[in-house]
Amino acid sequence: MADLLVIQSGGCTAAMNASLAGVMRSAARSRRIARVLGSYRGVLGLLRGELIDLSEQRLDLDRVRHTPAALLGSARHRLLPDDIDRALDTIRRLDVRFVHVIGGNDSADTGHRLATAAAERGYELFVVTIPKTVDNDLPETDHTPGYGSAARFVAQAVMDAGRDTESISSVDPVKIIEIGGRDAGWLTIAAGVGRRDEQDAPHLMYIPETPFSVEGFLDDVQRTFDRHGRAVIALSEAVRDRNGVYIHANGSDLYTDSFGHRQLGGVAAMLCDRVAHDLGIKAKFDKPGTIQRMLTACHSTVDLDEAERLGTAAVERVLAGVTNRMVTLHRVSDDPYHCDIDDAHLHAIANRVRTVPAEFVTDDGHAITSAFRRYAEPLIGAALPDYPRLARRFITIPSSIV
Amino acid sequence: MADLLVIQSGGCTAAMNASLAGVMRSAARSRRIARVLGSYRGVLGLLRGELIDLSEQRLDLDRVRHTPAALLGSARHRLLPDDIDRALDTIRRLDVRFVHVIGGNDSADTGHRLATAAAERGYELFVVTIPKTVDNDLPETDHTPGYGSAARFVAQAVMDAGRDTESISSVDPVKIIEIGGRDAGWLTIAAGVGRRDEQDAPHLMYIPETPFSVEGFLDDVQRTFDRHGRAVIALSEAVRDRNGVYIHANGSDLYTDSFGHRQLGGVAAMLCDRVAHDLGIKAKFDKPGTIQRMLTACHSTVDLDEAERLGTAAVERVLAGVTNRMVTLHRVSDDPYHCDIDDAHLHAIANRVRTVPAEFVTDDGHAITSAFRRYAEPLIGAALPDYPRLARRFITIPSSIV
Repeated sequence: MADLLVIQSGGCTAAMNASLAGVMRSAARSRRIARVLGSYRGVLGLLRGELIDLSEQRLDLDRVRHTPAALLGSARHRLLPDDIDRALDTIRRLDVRFVHVIGGNDSADTGHRLATAAAERGYELFVVTIPKTVDNDLPETDHTPGYGSAARFVAQAVMDAGRDTESISSVDPVKIIEIGGRDAGWLTIAAGVGRRDEQDAPHLMYIPETPFSVEGFLDDVQRTFDRHGRAVIALSEAVRDRNGVYIHANGSDLYTDSFGHRQLGGVAAMLCDRVAHDLGIKAKFDKPGTIQRMLTACHSTVDLDEAERLGTAAVERVLAGVTNRMVTLHRVSDDPYHCDIDDAHLHAIANRVRTVPAEFVTDDGHAITSAFRRYAEPLIGAALPDYPRLARRFITIPSSIV
Repeated sequence: MADLLVIQSGGCTAAMNASLAGVMRSAARSRRIARVLGSYRGVLGLLRGELIDLSEQRLDLDRVRHTPAALLGSARHRLLPDDIDRALDTIRRLDVRFVHVIGGNDSADTGHRLATAAAERGYELFVVTIPKTVDNDLPETDHTPGYGSAARFVAQAVMDAGRDTESISSVDPVKIIEIGGRDAGWLTIAAGVGRRDEQDAPHLMYIPETPFSVEGFLDDVQRTFDRHGRAVIALSEAVRDRNGVYIHANGSDLYTDSFGHRQLGGVAAMLCDRVAHDLGIKAKFDKPGTIQRMLTACHSTVDLDEAERLGTAAVERVLAGVTNRMVTLHRVSDDPYHCDIDDAHLHAIANRVRTVPAEFVTDDGHAITSAFRRYAEPLIGAALPDYPRLARRFITIPSSIV
């Protein structure tokens, strides 16, 4: 019998505790695992000796599964060489033989370095990481847990906000919805999944993969406004110009914080100002921020199921002697949708980013293709609502009082 | 037989089409109503002669009920004296005898002036308006349809975003969530409904009813940060200083748009900057904006039911000869929750605002009271989730390798 250590790391999702529940359920079934230890606040817990015995906490795993963010706490901390020694020392003192990191790129790097260092020192340790990121930008897996729920939020929010603009475009004709994702447009293009015809929002989308210019944007908005009398825009917070410079970091220092950090998040406000100033059209923005990653009202059941299955599968793999790998999702079929679970070497994951492939967006980048729809629809869970629209047929009004 | 005219007006909610469905269902059952006519884009449709015969559109009323915003289109337009004449002229030519306006304060004013003008001209017209606003600021009614669903969004979003901050406070310790409502803090204090203990978000709330100072805010944030290592803040977009001046409109012109309009919406960004600059603590904000009013994933079933019941009841009242009134909700019991339907004179509604009463918030304004919890919990529908939290008990780590 040996202990199993689980770490949650990096930016949080609404599905990462489902993976934790999967690990705990699976570990509880094994006679080879003594305790399940949770590292408090990401890898910091391991470095500081702040580990929690999850086996004695009598958690209701169904409630854990539905809890957003990281029940263990999370952190962003890149291991230094000294850290690796300290981490392995604690692992050896506790006779931990199994490690899972629930995380993204950086966690794959952490897992890879732990597994490699243990092997170099002749300590038998099995490390299998579990993918997690709303950004969906990990290689070697069809998609990442957390994406489906966040994508569902974005699709639903843009549909619903789009109906607001459609209803009251005489007052508020332009709405920019700023969507997260630092390096890739996966979450932004999820906005297109609820769009069924050209009346529907979003009328325009902008992702980091396509070079952005403010002038081009203003032309697009004017053209869309002329055509529809309104424009609802899904905008990645991380759009960049042709030199790769973030748009929000250009020009004025309006969107630079007091430390001089040029923070993501100001681009929609800046563009609203330009739409008002240059085009004379009133524009507002929504910035759901954290809420798009967390809102459990938009949990995708498919996402939660897969997150938990990956947790379960990761435990099965370490028990079978697998190490230095991440469990992955391998799509077998779109309809009926099914993913098998596979795994990939951590070296192939760490510090690599998978951007949106060209075949998932139209040439101008403003709409999704049917290929992306096939890819994304199963991931967001239950079908999105289908809202009716009135036929705009006006009655004849009698020319005089009856 | 005579026609019935229905108008949707003002800012949109996720429940206002449920009232429309109630009107249509109820009208379809009456032999005295010929057609149900919808005014396209608020009162503008009536003024422009753009009316739609809803009876011939074969709408699926269950889908109408669940569609956010205004299926008929909405507008903000205050009737001028000439407008009243034009509107009544169209009404008389069509022999419309029944009018419903689904709206807030301004709609009560519109309804009141239409009913009064018709009476003055000796034209028999029955006008009963149906309350609608996420702001919950109408007098004479326990609450307004649209509020329950928006309040559910706010409560859930702040709970869930709060879990994110709790998980990763070592990276992002302060989060400001900017919540709508121009004159009253009803929607902001809904953030408190999901809070079960002092660990839970929101740690601080700021509403327009309590004078706001940036210095006091910074003190509160520092104190909360010292105590909890984090602060999640529910902030009304409309907080004002002791002179009633909106905070976002103070000082710098940073948050003034290019037309010189001082728009609501910039206060959270400004305060994040102050937290970073004055306290040296990293702060971010979420601004759900439109999404808080619209997201159907947060529909409160109680809200939709009441919105539809009020639509039904409004038709029953005009058929019974009632005019110049708004249907209202009268709470009979908190537990089990039930509201009867009543009505009030439009003169008592128009252009009046009901702010949050003192007994619904604590003296410092930063938390809700049990009285508000009793008031609000039934309105948001199904119970909010109850997330587990780990006991922070760390295991002992052996001093040497076993």
